[in-house]
Amino acid sequence: MHEIIFEADTPAGKMFDVILLIMILASVIVVILESVRPYQLAYGTLFIYLEWAFTIFFTIEYIVRIYSVYKPSKYITSFFGIIDLMSILPTYLSIFFAGTHSLMVIRGLRLLRVFRIFKLANFLSESQVIINSLKASRAKIFVFVTFILIMVSIFGSLMYLIEGVQNDQFDSIPRSIYWAIVTLTTVGYGDISPITPVGQFIAAIIMISGYAVIAVPTGIVTADVMRSVGNKNKKVSTQVCRYCSLEGHDTDAIYCKHCGERLNE
Amino acid sequence: MHEIIFEADTPAGKMFDVILLIMILASVIVVILESVRPYQLAYGTLFIYLEWAFTIFFTIEYIVRIYSVYKPSKYITSFFGIIDLMSILPTYLSIFFAGTHSLMVIRGLRLLRVFRIFKLANFLSESQVIINSLKASRAKIFVFVTFILIMVSIFGSLMYLIEGVQNDQFDSIPRSIYWAIVTLTTVGYGDISPITPVGQFIAAIIMISGYAVIAVPTGIVTADVMRSVGNKNKKVSTQVCRYCSLEGHDTDAIYCKHCGERLNE
Amino acid sequence: MHEIIFEADTPAGKMFDVILLIMILASVIVVILESVRPYQLAYGTLFIYLEWAFTIFFTIEYIVRIYSVYKPSKYITSFFGIIDLMSILPTYLSIFFAGTHSLMVIRGLRLLRVFRIFKLANFLSESQVIINSLKASRAKIFVFVTFILIMVSIFGSLMYLIEGVQNDQFDSIPRSIYWAIVTLTTVGYGDISPITPVGQFIAAIIMISGYAVIAVPTGIVTADVMRSVGNKNKKVSTQVCRYCSLEGHDTDAIYCKHCGERLNE
Amino acid sequence: MHEIIFEADTPAGKMFDVILLIMILASVIVVILESVRPYQLAYGTLFIYLEWAFTIFFTIEYIVRIYSVYKPSKYITSFFGIIDLMSILPTYLSIFFAGTHSLMVIRGLRLLRVFRIFKLANFLSESQVIINSLKASRAKIFVFVTFILIMVSIFGSLMYLIEGVQNDQFDSIPRSIYWAIVTLTTVGYGDISPITPVGQFIAAIIMISGYAVIAVPTGIVTADVMRSVGNKNKKVSTQVCRYCSLEGHDTDAIYCKHCGERLNE
Repeated sequence: MHEIIFEADTPAGKMFDVILLIMILASVIVVILESVRPYQLAYGTLFIYLEWAFTIFFTIEYIVRIYSVYKPSKYITSFFGIIDLMSILPTYLSIFFAGTHSLMVIRGLRLLRVFRIFKLANFLSESQVIINSLKASRAKIFVFVTFILIMVSIFGSLMYLIEGVQNDQFDSIPRSIYWAIVTLTTVGYGDISPITPVGQFIAAIIMISGYAVIAVPTGIVTADVMRSVGNKNKKVSTQVCRYCSLEGHDTDAIYCKHCGERLNE
Repeated sequence: MHEIIFEADTPAGKMFDVILLIMILASVIVVILESVRPYQLAYGTLFIYLEWAFTIFFTIEYIVRIYSVYKPSKYITSFFGIIDLMSILPTYLSIFFAGTHSLMVIRGLRLLRVFRIFKLANFLSESQVIINSLKASRAKIFVFVTFILIMVSIFGSLMYLIEGVQNDQFDSIPRSIYWAIVTLTTVGYGDISPITPVGQFIAAIIMISGYAVIAVPTGIVTADVMRSVGNKNKKVSTQVCRYCSLEGHDTDAIYCKHCGERLNE
Repeated sequence: MHEIIFEADTPAGKMFDVILLIMILASVIVVILESVRPYQLAYGTLFIYLEWAFTIFFTIEYIVRIYSVYKPSKYITSFFGIIDLMSILPTYLSIFFAGTHSLMVIRGLRLLRVFRIFKLANFLSESQVIINSLKASRAKIFVFVTFILIMVSIFGSLMYLIEGVQNDQFDSIPRSIYWAIVTLTTVGYGDISPITPVGQFIAAIIMISGYAVIAVPTGIVTADVMRSVGNKNKKVSTQVCRYCSLEGHDTDAIYCKHCGERLNE
Repeated sequence: MHEIIFEADTPAGKMFDVILLIMILASVIVVILESVRPYQLAYGTLFIYLEWAFTIFFTIEYIVRIYSVYKPSKYITSFFGIIDLMSILPTYLSIFFAGTHSLMVIRGLRLLRVFRIFKLANFLSESQVIINSLKASRAKIFVFVTFILIMVSIFGSLMYLIEGVQNDQFDSIPRSIYWAIVTLTTVGYGDISPITPVGQFIAAIIMISGYAVIAVPTGIVTADVMRSVGNKNKKVSTQVCRYCSLEGHDTDAIYCKHCGERLNE
């Protein structure tokens, strides 16, 4: 049973995963459609039935998953274990609280499984490159984001002082900081924009800073990606250990490298 | 005949390609101008005559192309073969359906031939570098785009829950997801924008994420471009095999490397 | 006393720094909240008391810092010395001038200390990489920004000539230059936008230029980051020289490498 | 005389260049201020006098430059020669045509001389790196821009077909193409934005494409910058050959490497 539910190497396991994937996609689409007023008026009751059908299916799947591993606690606290739980909770919570069922879109996160299902082993190693380079850049990105936050706070306060008098769009520092973020990241909604010459001058400085500053994280990530790519990509199997739920075994592995449990062939 | 129509190495072939290019450009401009109301009112009949003239010319060219290759099926199913067909169909379809002739702008894709016409052999190899690095990054970009789509779905649903109550711009999840894409990609139209403090706070998180996340594909493509550039650029000829329509032969090739057909000198 | 206030290697020093950090964050939040009308009406007097409490605390801290170093002038003219002074001045100035206390957000700059407090010695070296690569790119970025400024001046004047006649959003060259900056940096508020076909055509040229030009600083910074990263990252201690306020000592340093003063152990 | 006007190695030459730079900056500021209605009403006559003063000064400078080189035709057809001429013509033309004097902002291009004046010889070599890498990327950027233009034409036509019926902002293909450029480059004014669900869906595709596509030129330029940087930067002198106006001599050059003319010491 563990082989069917957790892996994608056997025909049965693959079939199960494809069905699961379709169910997840369908349930996400139902949640999205339900939020559109005309559809909700027309098919409201149908949507509620479908939601409960999906939730019951996913609840059974969750229980079977817990049952089929040796150490349920390992699975429950793993990344996909938490996602699986979070994707069934909202429907049950919606009995008590209105609105929570929209959070079921979190089910979408389970779509990440798609990479395993199609046996896209090389996709797994590709995303490994991305994750590794992000990990390597983590500290630098933290420094960078802190710097950005301090910068937008100062610019936001400055604009509050300068524009606030004449322009009621800049009526508080939080709003001005929000504007500074919108500007620095080059999003530029235009719902808040400076009207005084001095304000426009400072805005221009922020824009050119933002334009030049974006080069920094790009340069950092590029440097890290290039080093990650340099390290030879190992092939990765889609097997999952029955005992400790470890993933990412080598293709020729027979026993789990972490707990010594024999893997499914 | 094959030499004249498909290649750009002889004076006659070059002349033919230049004329073809001018015809394509002219036909695209006619389609664009026709869509502007004042011009259409003034020169509507002229535009219709021109369109049919271009279409008949391109139809003859298409038939001659099919006639002059040994294996028409290869040409018809090749990239340029499909583009050539798609660029003449809309005018004929416009007899039966209104509006389709605007699709004739697809003719513009044929402008890609421009690179061959001017014998810009080194431009061909340049675009080869771009295509190769995109191919090498394909799997990573797929992972990246999937991640982006899941992210905008979750942020979009969150904003629907938070803003939807007070702000009728966020009246459904699809609209909120559209807003999340507009924000994450830093386009920022401003037609939909958050008004509650909590909504603006989450918007700020999306913006800074988008600003940092753009560094990832850039880093990946850069790393791949650098490797592609490292591989020595081979000179590429503009000859096309008469038998299997293969392009990109080496400059000293006498026979097609794919089917052994003798190439034009 | 120097050990407690300036360093984060001893429990007492760490405790002091954590308290200081909380005080700084709290004072920044008070300034931000105070600018929001409803909060100010409700808690205005409380905010004023808090502000003075923070200012007196930071003034005492500043005086103790000056007292505990051998060469106060070195500390006063150092980066953090100036920030420390600037973060207490606005409250005192607010007795004489209205509005200046909003500048207290400059206190936020002191949050940069956070990197030292948590003994994130490797974060220090990370930011060193960023600073080094920015320094290395300084001259190139200056050339780049000068080029951008000349470009937006010319495009701005051109748009003033073309759009100004029909579009009163382009009523002066400074406003047109502001628009050109908003466009070139891809911020795009939409408060000013061209309406004539010729104006839109030139705007399209600016946008595509901006889109292509952004690649230049990115490429430059990336190249410099990669060289900086190539240089092995040295571990850096959080100790500060009592005599000359030098930071960034090696972890095995016993004497200050600059003035020979013995460091705290 | 050639030494004073064209070079910045002697005190007299430096002084001349600094004065020239201040004159250029002042003349640009006058043109900009003149376009602002309130200033023009108040100081209109003064501005006209100043403009003529600057123009006469620059005309004399231009004539002396022509006079002091052996081969005036070389200087006249050089980059700075053309800029120098273009910066004095508009004032004279304004006698015959209204409005042309705004083009005097082209004078700003002469500010590029700033790099030579301050003897920033290493800035000269920095900009050399930028120019070299742009030159190396030229063919790739041409391919890239052609691809972008074809892409926005197709997307623009598609949106005209889909949105045009319900949304009069998409009333012609040129306007739709303009919108596609605004979107793809992530500028996003919001003056034109899709309102139908299908239109918003296609807009989302364009945005994500634009977001991913920007990585391509960045990667290309980065790769080229890194190769340019790899080539050791030679020190460059600020001397200019009296005979052929060649710049960029090595610091130890005694004769012009192009025409053999002896350089000023």
